[in-house]
Amino acid sequence: MDSETLMATFLRRGILWPTAEIYGGIQGFYDYGDAGGAIKRNLESAWDRWFVGLSPGYYRIEPAEVLPEAVLRASGHLANFADPLVTCDSCNERFRADTLLEEWGEKDVEGLRVEDLQARISQINKKCPKCGRGKISPPKAFNLMFGVDVGTEGRERAYLRPETAQSSYLAFSRLWNVMRKKLPLGVAVVGKAYRNEIAPRQVLFRMRAFTQAELQIFFDPEEPAASWKLPVDAKLPVLTARRRARGDTEHLLTPASELVASGEMPEFYAYHLYMSYLFYRDILGYPERSLRLFEKNEKERAFYNRIQYDIELKLESLGGFKEMGAVHYRGDYDLSRHSEGSKSDLGVTLDGGKHLLPHVLELTFGIDRNIWGLADVHLHKDQDRTFWSLPSYLSPLVAGVLPLIPKEHGALANSLYQSLRSEGFRVTIDEAGSVGRRYARLDEVGVPFAVTVDRDSLTNGTFTLRARDAKTQQRLSLPEIILELRRASVSPVPSSVGPTAP
Amino acid sequence: MDSETLMATFLRRGILWPTAEIYGGIQGFYDYGDAGGAIKRNLESAWDRWFVGLSPGYYRIEPAEVLPEAVLRASGHLANFADPLVTCDSCNERFRADTLLEEWGEKDVEGLRVEDLQARISQINKKCPKCGRGKISPPKAFNLMFGVDVGTEGRERAYLRPETAQSSYLAFSRLWNVMRKKLPLGVAVVGKAYRNEIAPRQVLFRMRAFTQAELQIFFDPEEPAASWKLPVDAKLPVLTARRRARGDTEHLLTPASELVASGEMPEFYAYHLYMSYLFYRDILGYPERSLRLFEKNEKERAFYNRIQYDIELKLESLGGFKEMGAVHYRGDYDLSRHSEGSKSDLGVTLDGGKHLLPHVLELTFGIDRNIWGLADVHLHKDQDRTFWSLPSYLSPLVAGVLPLIPKEHGALANSLYQSLRSEGFRVTIDEAGSVGRRYARLDEVGVPFAVTVDRDSLTNGTFTLRARDAKTQQRLSLPEIILELRRASVSPVPSSVGPTAP
Repeated sequence: MDSETLMATFLRRGILWPTAEIYGGIQGFYDYGDAGGAIKRNLESAWDRWFVGLSPGYYRIEPAEVLPEAVLRASGHLANFADPLVTCDSCNERFRADTLLEEWGEKDVEGLRVEDLQARISQINKKCPKCGRGKISPPKAFNLMFGVDVGTEGRERAYLRPETAQSSYLAFSRLWNVMRKKLPLGVAVVGKAYRNEIAPRQVLFRMRAFTQAELQIFFDPEEPAASWKLPVDAKLPVLTARRRARGDTEHLLTPASELVASGEMPEFYAYHLYMSYLFYRDILGYPERSLRLFEKNEKERAFYNRIQYDIELKLESLGGFKEMGAVHYRGDYDLSRHSEGSKSDLGVTLDGGKHLLPHVLELTFGIDRNIWGLADVHLHKDQDRTFWSLPSYLSPLVAGVLPLIPKEHGALANSLYQSLRSEGFRVTIDEAGSVGRRYARLDEVGVPFAVTVDRDSLTNGTFTLRARDAKTQQRLSLPEIILELRRASVSPVPSSVGPTAP
Repeated sequence: MDSETLMATFLRRGILWPTAEIYGGIQGFYDYGDAGGAIKRNLESAWDRWFVGLSPGYYRIEPAEVLPEAVLRASGHLANFADPLVTCDSCNERFRADTLLEEWGEKDVEGLRVEDLQARISQINKKCPKCGRGKISPPKAFNLMFGVDVGTEGRERAYLRPETAQSSYLAFSRLWNVMRKKLPLGVAVVGKAYRNEIAPRQVLFRMRAFTQAELQIFFDPEEPAASWKLPVDAKLPVLTARRRARGDTEHLLTPASELVASGEMPEFYAYHLYMSYLFYRDILGYPERSLRLFEKNEKERAFYNRIQYDIELKLESLGGFKEMGAVHYRGDYDLSRHSEGSKSDLGVTLDGGKHLLPHVLELTFGIDRNIWGLADVHLHKDQDRTFWSLPSYLSPLVAGVLPLIPKEHGALANSLYQSLRSEGFRVTIDEAGSVGRRYARLDEVGVPFAVTVDRDSLTNGTFTLRARDAKTQQRLSLPEIILELRRASVSPVPSSVGPTAP
């Protein structure tokens, strides 16, 4: 499905629309509707159950989105969180220098410094792609953070956080002190981050306000957890930096043990890359052939990242592989910066007396991008219908209740609807139009089941359970339906968990 | 429990702490920890199940928190969303004029205009309560919105939304068009709102970033829904504006039908006030005697509110009744302002051909305040323990799994923990310290059950289920435990729902 058709479906079904659209919108901001918001919450919860579920020593917090300037000075964002901005001297249109070079067909643009970008732009010397006349200015660094003045005199400078991770680093010592005082300790945040993008685009892929789900695992690199062991048959679809340097462009399903043995990554890293990969493949249902683990080389990755693999999905709607999440080994950069910035020692003393500044392994996940990904992969059109074969636990509703003839079956349908709600299920009731049309409405937003109430229901208490993808129908009693919906509502958890000893 | 003890418990158990505390914090911002965040999400979900559950024609959306200036100009916030700011001419401390007058013992301060506040301040002519020397300046209007500049030239002025309601008004016509095209139509938002409070205080009661849950019901005042009927025995603990005008200060449990018959409120209003009241009483478990429905008179309420009752809870920790939510009848103010502001007709045409601008009934709820309320009401201290008798569906976890002797019972406990997680339950496993200490840790954050694994568990597959409040213990099999935890996990829904015919 192409990007326009996908977006049209989103708009038509009220899954997503531009913020303040009746006022002409505000670039880079979107509102989720009823189904969209529900899918988003389910995705957040499935992510939580999988990643925070990796260990009982991992915690999810919900910190404020506004951070004081001192925090972002220490983290380096104040000085360095910038994109290269160029301007057309004729029409005044603004571009990101690297994106513009890529549009001009240039390769290997990522990670270039401002001087190098400028050299390339001068060398190519093309006109502005918008007005066709103007000359492109030299790039300057444009800080992407949104500033906010707090207090009555505006003297307290703060920022909307540009990433959720900083909130987790700030919380580390509180959690260390009040929780189990054991490493590894995980801190997860699912929440908004804000970036004043020069050119927001591709709908959910470059927004100015977006939702991240990130887990920061604080650990002792000399003694990673004993449970961080790869299954013997674990394979990863990697395109390593080494192979890229040799000119390879295809990813290869490679035994994880080989990557460890060849020294390309330590086992603690391979384990988390694998557990992340499983989430995309098994929980989100992304096809194996569409997933790629793309290693960023030293030039491309942030200087504090010692290892970085982006987890990429091949998207038909956007014509290629896109980053959906990543695994970053950040060393002790973050805690050392914030120790310095806050003038407090964020190091910890372990049971045996060893004192250390924990290292950080960061598992990131883009919620909005993956909602798009779930649509790209699972939204199907056949001759007569559009259906979204979302994993059932991500679906906005687990079932719709449909009285065949509302006048006759409406009362029973209503009481069934109430019973299912009382059991905790997300269900709706729909009486409008033919049953076929009602199925179609449910199919399009990914509802896995429809329960039809008909004449037989009145006499023998059974209902028709219709499955979205196969369109099969089964005649079932209420307890059987409850069992079926229960199974469908719960997202899987990792089959073995990490360090349980608290 | 007093406010300090309550806050100390929150800090000690990592339920809540000041944002960026290692940097000295940022006034008016707080981070929720693991248990706090989980309680918050459960409260949001219980609110959703109750209020959005009032009708299948109600929708919950998740809109962006940033709104363009034009929206807030139309809504009146740009011109009027201000508090009266006064300054000490000696120490430069800043106060809200009305709060300062109240601290000085003045009555009936709410709703006073700036001129009246000034008159009173001059009349009293007290010194600054902070330095004891300075004179208090005349009040000036201080706009509470946080501005944000969007785009590379900062030309697009926007604001962090000061209330979630505006996002719902903006979404109305999209939802009308893509959903059932029927009134009543409900739009709910659970999300952040931001106010640059002059003096943030009382922790969760006056924050600069806080979470609201609000339902806007769009309806035809000439034909409210047929299902909006009060039960005959419905009683409301009201202190009406009429009675207040006569000098009454006590609320009275009054039959709702009387309030309707006397013309104090239309039935559609009484119905929603009652359904709201039930939520606080039956779902949050606030004692009937601590709840008060306080009517704001014409001077106190916003000019566009035709009727306003605040739902108040008597809080021991804050020494009196505090607003926890409200029911506002806003008429057609909002859609008419945004029709004008967006230059589009937000009116709708009903099936019969009638065209109207729907009226709005707004049910508001403060998430953070109610987390404090739940602690004030349900956090108990007896001789030997602190326990939080949270309603089980609001608890951060439904159970903790405790191997009596970790070495011997750890493996089975682990597999039980895994089974319960696979079933979808929020559980933890805790092996540290005596069982008594482990109970205590669970009690304090409100976990309703502990499942102990002991020697008998190994032989006959039963476990001890210990209940938090009564400290009773039962010996149960896994399927029995699952049944018990299932019952405890699901928040109640309204027993009859509104207009189901779509």
